[in-house]
Formats: sequence, structure tokens, C-alpha cells
Amino acid sequence: MLQGNGALITSRTQDTVQLEIRKIAVRDLSKARDGDAPADLFTTNLLDVVNDPAVDVVVELIGGTDAAYDLVEAALKAGKPVVTGNKALLAERGGPLFALSKEHNAPIHFEAAVAGGIPIIKAVQESLVGNRIESIAGIINGTSNYILQRMTEAGLGYPEALKEAKELGYAEADETLDVNGWDAAHKAILLASLAHGFVIDPEKVYVRGIEKVTPLDIRFASELGYVVKLLSLVHKCQNGDIEIRTQPSFLSKKHILASVHGVFNAVAVKGDHLGESLFYGRGAGQGPTASSVVSDLVEAARNSRADRGFLPYKESGPLREIDESKTSYYVRFSVNDQPGVIAEIASILAQHKIGISGTHSPVDADNPDAEFLEMVFLLHTCPFGQLKLALQEVEKLACITARPVVFRIENL
Amino acid sequence: MLQGNGALITSRTQDTVQLEIRKIAVRDLSKARDGDAPADLFTTNLLDVVNDPAVDVVVELIGGTDAAYDLVEAALKAGKPVVTGNKALLAERGGPLFALSKEHNAPIHFEAAVAGGIPIIKAVQESLVGNRIESIAGIINGTSNYILQRMTEAGLGYPEALKEAKELGYAEADETLDVNGWDAAHKAILLASLAHGFVIDPEKVYVRGIEKVTPLDIRFASELGYVVKLLSLVHKCQNGDIEIRTQPSFLSKKHILASVHGVFNAVAVKGDHLGESLFYGRGAGQGPTASSVVSDLVEAARNSRADRGFLPYKESGPLREIDESKTSYYVRFSVNDQPGVIAEIASILAQHKIGISGTHSPVDADNPDAEFLEMVFLLHTCPFGQLKLALQEVEKLACITARPVVFRIENL
Repeated sequence: MLQGNGALITSRTQDTVQLEIRKIAVRDLSKARDGDAPADLFTTNLLDVVNDPAVDVVVELIGGTDAAYDLVEAALKAGKPVVTGNKALLAERGGPLFALSKEHNAPIHFEAAVAGGIPIIKAVQESLVGNRIESIAGIINGTSNYILQRMTEAGLGYPEALKEAKELGYAEADETLDVNGWDAAHKAILLASLAHGFVIDPEKVYVRGIEKVTPLDIRFASELGYVVKLLSLVHKCQNGDIEIRTQPSFLSKKHILASVHGVFNAVAVKGDHLGESLFYGRGAGQGPTASSVVSDLVEAARNSRADRGFLPYKESGPLREIDESKTSYYVRFSVNDQPGVIAEIASILAQHKIGISGTHSPVDADNPDAEFLEMVFLLHTCPFGQLKLALQEVEKLACITARPVVFRIENL
Repeated sequence: MLQGNGALITSRTQDTVQLEIRKIAVRDLSKARDGDAPADLFTTNLLDVVNDPAVDVVVELIGGTDAAYDLVEAALKAGKPVVTGNKALLAERGGPLFALSKEHNAPIHFEAAVAGGIPIIKAVQESLVGNRIESIAGIINGTSNYILQRMTEAGLGYPEALKEAKELGYAEADETLDVNGWDAAHKAILLASLAHGFVIDPEKVYVRGIEKVTPLDIRFASELGYVVKLLSLVHKCQNGDIEIRTQPSFLSKKHILASVHGVFNAVAVKGDHLGESLFYGRGAGQGPTASSVVSDLVEAARNSRADRGFLPYKESGPLREIDESKTSYYVRFSVNDQPGVIAEIASILAQHKIGISGTHSPVDADNPDAEFLEMVFLLHTCPFGQLKLALQEVEKLACITARPVVFRIENL
């Protein structure tokens, strides 16, 4: 990208920015590589990159949170701006790194860490700088989104859809962080810490993956007017609490996020003055990631001040407990077909003051006396903790044959 | 916004930015105003704002291209950064202002000039700085979009839909620039000049409004799988020519831009590395505009260098002639119902080597012998000039009762 578009970048910056690669640290010098970088640029010692006085900006694209931490720490201590695409590093160990950045007046640029080529970091740090950010809702893991879409369109089970995603290169050999929600959660943590100004402890964040989503619930969702999406939410509650969740959720088919297909990402942001806006694009891949890294490099080259963009500026803030977070719900009960099942469940819900907005159970038109095995309730908005208490009681009923399946219905 | 969120802005900028209003120039001091700015801030002399030594940044929100020009010129000559939302000013007279900006090292920030609260200027100037920009396609006039939507949904004629838009405050008392396409065209000109680095002469840009769109064509569009949208396009042709057009066009119902409803705006950008991305949000109104102006103010406050963002850096560039621009087309002919009509039209098209991909004429199922009055042809891709020549001949046919109606079918 620098070879092909470097002259364009220099023109666009009125001849102020020329980007040249001075050093490339790799694990294995003998590995075959694309591109024609001269062999003398390569080193296996990470710190060579920081210590070379010809290097003005350090780019970290190693991944992981150990060697990457050491490199970024060394660069910041040397007063060199850092460009990174490492969401895990910043979400897990961002606190000390942001403090070093401030101390040494060396900015950290991380557009590539969230949603690949979508400039959502810049939007939150700069375009929304004058807005209180009321909510952020994102589809920010393309692998999960692709798998859920194939389960929806083709009726595939989770294992088959995952297998397909791997064959097409949409899932890594080790898909763990993509499908257990943590890749998306790391991104949401970064967005939340920018939007609300404090470093967020990942251990306090609620994260559920897509591994247990079934074709049955996807079908029921569709019949009810919803799609199932792995949604990451950062919501400012009325009392000032910040609620952060990543989980498979029901979303109205009419919502614009419902049309985010395949490996695309999208982030919807609501500001108190801006109103609603949406940013959509490729969430991963070589080109989009390079595009964000180069944009950050230009930023770093033009700007030696650490205060650009806003970083966390408070030690802590009011994180909402997951049990207090409120939405409406879809709950599917697996039951024995016996008289009184509905009444038993409904009366427990009533005792817990949880309203029912609808029920749904699949009917076999050809066989109206077929055994009645799945019962869906749509429940009014209530705190998650209140629902959990009710469901603990329901589970004890003799008619219940499995743990109830719960999805939040997000009314974004 | 500064009163309510000013402290937040200062925190987010690590205490480096405090925005205070020092002077407000107005036409009429006696006019009642919202807000509680002290009376001694107001003046009727525009230049008081520039000349006050306490003023670091000048915000121009006057509109028009005369007094606004004088104000911006004076500010730049005084070396003061300018924030403006004035698309007409920059599209019509941007050349000399950008030159002054460079000469006096005083940046012009104009996020509010294009698509209200959507940070598309920042996206093009900064996030896409490393990309060759292959295309920009936008719905960037909310008034037109609202009117077309009401014509589509409620079958209203243009005058009725315009009347409704005015009653709801979605159209100005003088709607001219909104409905004749020039408001959108000014925005497209600004985006094109950033994307391709040269100042664009508005007189060389093709612009058509929505005033002549009929419910009939909207219905036919829908029956064929399209919606009619006022689209602004900036397209880089294979030979390097830049094609800029604003006109009502057919767009597949499945395209994401087809779901941009009401007064919302959206801009789709394709970069050579980034791939496709889309920015969506409110295109106008007090809150979104203020949001962009304040973001620019923070930018101006943090940054005294004129080289941030990329501005036009070339005197001129290769603008494509409209007659050479290629799309496929929808053409509706009003005809006398007489034998041979279709053959006559089709043979002229064939002589001009224009392929027909489909035909459509409304059939009254209850009355198959009803008079045949409207004939639609869908035509293969060809240069607009080639189509015009063919249509000039078709118009001379005795069976043709009105000028053919042409819409481009945009395959974005």
C-alpha cells in the first residue's frame, strides 16, 4: 500500500508526510513473504525497531498481549508514537499503556483494532467529541455474523456453519475468540472506554458467544419478526451507569443492523446532539486493516502531541451489574406435553411480576394433536436478575425437560 | 451545546481545549434568540469577529456566497482558522479560499458542509488518506429524499409531496436548491475535490433535480425492482477521468442505499484498499450540524497547522464529459396505440447499437384491449451521448406523443 499509494499520500498531505519502512521485526527470517522489502530491513529482535534512531513511529501488528506489550511499552517509553491493531492488548492491558502514553507524550493510534476499515475510533474520539454518547450498538465480529447468517439462511446447525466458515477462510483455525464473543467484547470495551472516559476491567463485562445458538431459536426468531445477531452494546443508563454486553440477541428485521450481512461490520452510535448515525464496512482483512494502519501512520506523522483524540481520563466509572440490565426477552421452554404446562409457567412469571407480551409454539398443521414440546414466551422488559430468579423456579417444575433458552430482544 | 457539554469536551481533550464564545455577529440585534448569550457579545459588524484579538477561531454560519466570502477571506488573511458549514461558498468559490488557507497557514474546517452530522469529510480527508477513491455515491439531500419517499409510499405527485414536506418543516420556504439538485451537487463537488485533489468548476458538473419525477415512473421502477433516489455520484473512470453527476436515478431495492429513508443521508465510499464502506446519519438540523461544528472547533483549537486533512493540491484534473458517461437506462415512451410502435422504436435503437435488456408496459388485466399508451424499455449500458442521438430520432416518429423520460439505472 505504501509502495502503490505513497506518492498520493505525500501529495494529499501537501508534501508534509513521507512514510518509509526502516525496520521490520519478525519471528522467522527465513519465512517466505509477499512484497519486496529488502532483506536488510528485517530483524528478529523486537527492540531493534524501537531503538533505531531513524524510526519515528512504531507499528505493532504482532497480536497477543505479551511480546506486543513489551514492544509498545518500549516505544512509548522512548517517546515514539505507536500504531496498533491489537484489541486484546488494549482491552486487557490498556490502562498502564495509556498512562505511559500520557507520561511520555507519545500517542497510541488504534483505528485498526476495532472494526477493521471502519473509522469508528476516529468518529468517537473526534467527530463525537462534543456529544454525550448515549449508546453504541455494533456487529463487530464478522466470523460470528457469517455463521449466524448461514444458520439463518440455510438452516445449518452451528457445527456445520462453523465448518463452512473455516473452509471459506472466514474463521481462523482457532476460532475460540471469535465465537465465544471475546473478540467483539474487546472491541466494545475499547469503544466504551473512549465514549465514557474510564478504563474498563474486562472481568466485569458480560460476554456470551454464539456456540449454543440453535437453528430452532433462529427459526422462531424469524417467525416472530426478528433476526439473531451477535450484538455488542454500550448503553448509558438513566442513572449514569454504563452497561456493556456482548451476546447473541434478537433484533427487529426492520432495524438497519439486521441487514449487515456476512463478514461486514457495522456500528450504530447515538449522541445527544448528533442523534443516530451508523458506520458500515469491512471488519477485517488485509486491505481494510492496512487502510486504517496507514491512516493512523499519517496521523502520527503529522502530530507529535499525545492529546489528540480522547483517551480514558478517569480512573473508574459506574459499570452496571448485568443482573440490573433491562430488556424484553424471548424464553423458550422445553416441556412435557401435559395439561396445565402453560398455566404453571405463567403463574410463576406472574408471581415475579414479569409481564407476558406474547406466546408462540410451533403448530404442525397436519397433526394438531402432535406432542407439544417447545413453548416460547415473549416477556416484557424487566431486570435480568428478576428473570433469572423466576426461571430458577420454573426449572424446578416437573413439566420442564431442559434449561430454558433465553435471548434478549434489543429494541435499539 | 458548549454550555451543556463544554466541561466534557475539556476532560476528553485532557484539559487542553476550552471553547468560549467571544463575539457573535448578527444582522439584527433586536431579534429574539434562544440561549442566554450576554448582550455585549453581539455585534452587527462581521469584521468585529475577526478583529477581536481574543478570537482564535472564526465560525461562519451565515450562508450565501457574498458576506460569507468576505468574512472567511478576512479570517484567513488574519491567520485565524475557519469553521464553516457553507457548502455553496466552498463549492462555488473554494479555489481562492483554499489558496488563502495555504498561504496564511490557517485551516478551513467544513465537516458541517456535507451531510450534517455524518463525519464524511473527516473520513475522506483522514481515514481514506492512503486509498485511491474509486467511487462515492451519496443520498445527501434529505428534502428530496423525503419527497421521493412520500411519492413512492403514498403515490403522491411531486407538488403534493413538496407541500407536505414544507408543512412538516422538511423543506425550506424556498426549496429551489434542494429540489433542483444543487444542494446535493455542491456537496458532491466538495467530496470530489477532496477525493481527487483538484478544484472543480461547478459549471462543468451535470445536475438534474427531482421536480419532473412522476408517480408513474416511480411505480414502474418499483415493479421492476428499483427505487428512485436523488443520487450524487463521483466515479473514477478506467481512463482516470472523474465523472460527477447528481440526478434522480434507479437503484436496486436490495442496495443498502435504497433503505435510506426520510431526511437521513448516507454516503458510500469505495477505496482501493478499504473496499466498500458506508456512513449514515442525520443530514441536517440543529443538533447534527452543531455536532460537526463543535468537532471542527476542537480540531481547530488543537491544531494550528494548515496541512491537516487533504485539500485540493492540483490546479485541475480530468473531468468526464456527461455525454461519455455510461450506465444502463430506463426509457419511457408515451405513444399512440398503433401497430408497429415497438418495432419502430426498437429498430432505431438497434441502428444506434443500443441493446435492449427488457421491456415493460402496464397491462390492465380487466381490459386487455385498453389503449396502449406507455412503453418502457430497459437499455444496456452505453454512453449517454449515444442514447441522446437515438432518442432524437425516436422523438420524430409519428407514434411518439411526448419527450421520452430517461432514468439512469445505477449499478453501484
